[in-house]
Amino acid sequence: MTGHLLTVGDEILLGQIVNTNAAWLGERLAEVGVDLRRSETVGDVIPEIAGAIARATAEGARLVVVTGGLGPTHDDVTRAAVAEAFGVELEFREELFERIRARYEARGRTMPEMGRVMAEAPAGFEALVNPKGSAPGLWGERDVDGRRQVVVVVPGVPHEMRTIMEDSALPRLAERQDGVVLSRTLLTAGRGESDISAQIAEQVSGLSNGLTLAYLPGLGEVRLRLTARGEDREAARRDLDAATDAVRDVLGALVFGEGTTTLEAVVNDALRERGLRLGVAESCTGGAISARVTAVSGASAVFCGSVVAYSNAAKADLLGVAPDLIEEEGAVSEAVALAMAAGARARLGADIGLATTGIAGPTGGTSDKPVGLVWLAYDDGDTQRAVRLQFTTDRAVNVALSTTAALDLVRRQLLRRG
Amino acid sequence: MTGHLLTVGDEILLGQIVNTNAAWLGERLAEVGVDLRRSETVGDVIPEIAGAIARATAEGARLVVVTGGLGPTHDDVTRAAVAEAFGVELEFREELFERIRARYEARGRTMPEMGRVMAEAPAGFEALVNPKGSAPGLWGERDVDGRRQVVVVVPGVPHEMRTIMEDSALPRLAERQDGVVLSRTLLTAGRGESDISAQIAEQVSGLSNGLTLAYLPGLGEVRLRLTARGEDREAARRDLDAATDAVRDVLGALVFGEGTTTLEAVVNDALRERGLRLGVAESCTGGAISARVTAVSGASAVFCGSVVAYSNAAKADLLGVAPDLIEEEGAVSEAVALAMAAGARARLGADIGLATTGIAGPTGGTSDKPVGLVWLAYDDGDTQRAVRLQFTTDRAVNVALSTTAALDLVRRQLLRRG
Repeated sequence: MTGHLLTVGDEILLGQIVNTNAAWLGERLAEVGVDLRRSETVGDVIPEIAGAIARATAEGARLVVVTGGLGPTHDDVTRAAVAEAFGVELEFREELFERIRARYEARGRTMPEMGRVMAEAPAGFEALVNPKGSAPGLWGERDVDGRRQVVVVVPGVPHEMRTIMEDSALPRLAERQDGVVLSRTLLTAGRGESDISAQIAEQVSGLSNGLTLAYLPGLGEVRLRLTARGEDREAARRDLDAATDAVRDVLGALVFGEGTTTLEAVVNDALRERGLRLGVAESCTGGAISARVTAVSGASAVFCGSVVAYSNAAKADLLGVAPDLIEEEGAVSEAVALAMAAGARARLGADIGLATTGIAGPTGGTSDKPVGLVWLAYDDGDTQRAVRLQFTTDRAVNVALSTTAALDLVRRQLLRRG
Repeated sequence: MTGHLLTVGDEILLGQIVNTNAAWLGERLAEVGVDLRRSETVGDVIPEIAGAIARATAEGARLVVVTGGLGPTHDDVTRAAVAEAFGVELEFREELFERIRARYEARGRTMPEMGRVMAEAPAGFEALVNPKGSAPGLWGERDVDGRRQVVVVVPGVPHEMRTIMEDSALPRLAERQDGVVLSRTLLTAGRGESDISAQIAEQVSGLSNGLTLAYLPGLGEVRLRLTARGEDREAARRDLDAATDAVRDVLGALVFGEGTTTLEAVVNDALRERGLRLGVAESCTGGAISARVTAVSGASAVFCGSVVAYSNAAKADLLGVAPDLIEEEGAVSEAVALAMAAGARARLGADIGLATTGIAGPTGGTSDKPVGLVWLAYDDGDTQRAVRLQFTTDRAVNVALSTTAALDLVRRQLLRRG
């Protein structure tokens, strides 16, 4: 099924907002087997929107997904534009109106007069329930040159768009495919794409027909998406599970999870399962580890806190690192990293201490200790471990890579403890 | 000048990368007066790229900006596609080749055989110097139906793309406009768009012809972009400066800067100018304030460090907050926020202590202290100040808004100190 993605909104076109919806939809549509040919953004202008749908149709797109412009303001013209593209009228639908009004009332608010337009739909279109907002999604179909075309319209607010796609549109699109498309995504940290592909070369070359593997690299993390296409759902599921499990077996502890979880959520869970609490001493990461750990709801049960020790005085006073040690070894050293981890554990009353010290850059390096040099340390009372890493000359990249590596160090040490 | 933006890359189309280039280019092209009609993304496929350029041309686009697909691999087909769209051949250019080879050698590396393709350009195209990478940008022109069309081609690597646009392409595009387009952007924190627009209603209604104002809202920050269009550069500059200064005067301390700086960079500068150092006690922000302050290169001169005190024990042991006070007032209270700020100042050896305590959510609220309640506190030894804020039920939004409000509190108090 060839697809075309259309994002509507002046604020996207003018760069006031980054179009994260396009990336999310691009990935999800690929997962259900849509062959996306083009993604485009137009302003809140009826002829531009209708024209884009007409162009996609002329080029043979069997699926057009439109996102944005479904709100209640004058700028929101997507409903009218879709009706124009289909050559149908907009209808007012009482049942949609009642649902929207009830939603407002449930939240103790009165539906504004303009909210009425959200109950309109192009004739022949089906409404898709929006559990997270007022404007429903829309699903329309027609025959074009003897072939069926589907047009899906969803709001631009990311969590509303995602919920409608996941609840309603994506499962139906998956069913429409010739055969089935199933996928699983393995999440890895700590190795690059080329290392991983060398490690699983045998499993990849042995992939049966209909199975493919895609590498999705990020900063310090690589996701591996395995996709199975076939006629029979049971057979595709069996093939996919066998191949994914085989890759997962070879990669072992490199894999920190599956699907849409995050490394920080996995670390939170691993601590909670073991009844352990983490304390952090951050130098070069400047608070980024703490910010990631506490981005997970419920972190207070497993996270005591942290000391961001940017100065040597803070390393000494708040973490108990001996000033002599800093003097002799330098603040960026194995010994100081280990002392910081021990200090974090002791001073924060934590079971596990984690520490970072490094030269984030872009300046401050020497030939001995270049920009991008980072020491990580872990201390759980029984086990002390320090890791030396050498990253880049870019400050933001170094902080992000150090943060991921530090979280991954905790994860791996917890795996070893069992 | 009507414009069309074309992003090339399978990884963008499939959602493996978020297209931040489109937002950056959309904003910058608008600033130089380009009327961007459409932004689209196609895969690394010659007919798709050439087809998109042909469509834009047929629709009358006088500017087409193409980004991505200029690297040295087999996937990088943008040069060939642009040549095809223009109906010209690709030429090998010795001078480009020498520059690319010299760049590799300067970095102690040998130019790979495939790097040769980066020295090719469509006949008639001018090369735009790339100070940050190997592949040069390209600038081509032709007459279409008696009107001049410009095609600019730049790499997809963000910092290379931005540098070539800023150094070479944007100034030339600005010159091409009928008349001139100049803009200034005021950065504000602490008030929403509607508050600001009420405050400057008089200045906005008095804007002379050719001057426009756009609101660009973010989380806790609103940017105001004033744009002047006219025939005469001097007159446009004078009008723009007068209008911007008038708005800035009315908004006073709401404006924290101009252009592309950040609130954290402004706070770093304000501390440095006064010879002061900051220490932070973070509860609900979980390290996000520290991460933002230390994202600025050179932060170590003005930032002592922070204590992320997620537990009451950490608030007591590391910040010296009396356990009785936490017991009586609750951890999320004015008294505890002030005690945390004083503790951060004392324990971190800082001139200024800053503290946050709140209920980030999504759970953990009570009727007295709902999710989204946040106390900020500032203490410089002479002045103590606490601020109560009520944000949303979204954890990530609450952390971002609290972080911005806390940085802004420091900025404003420093302004008062003079």
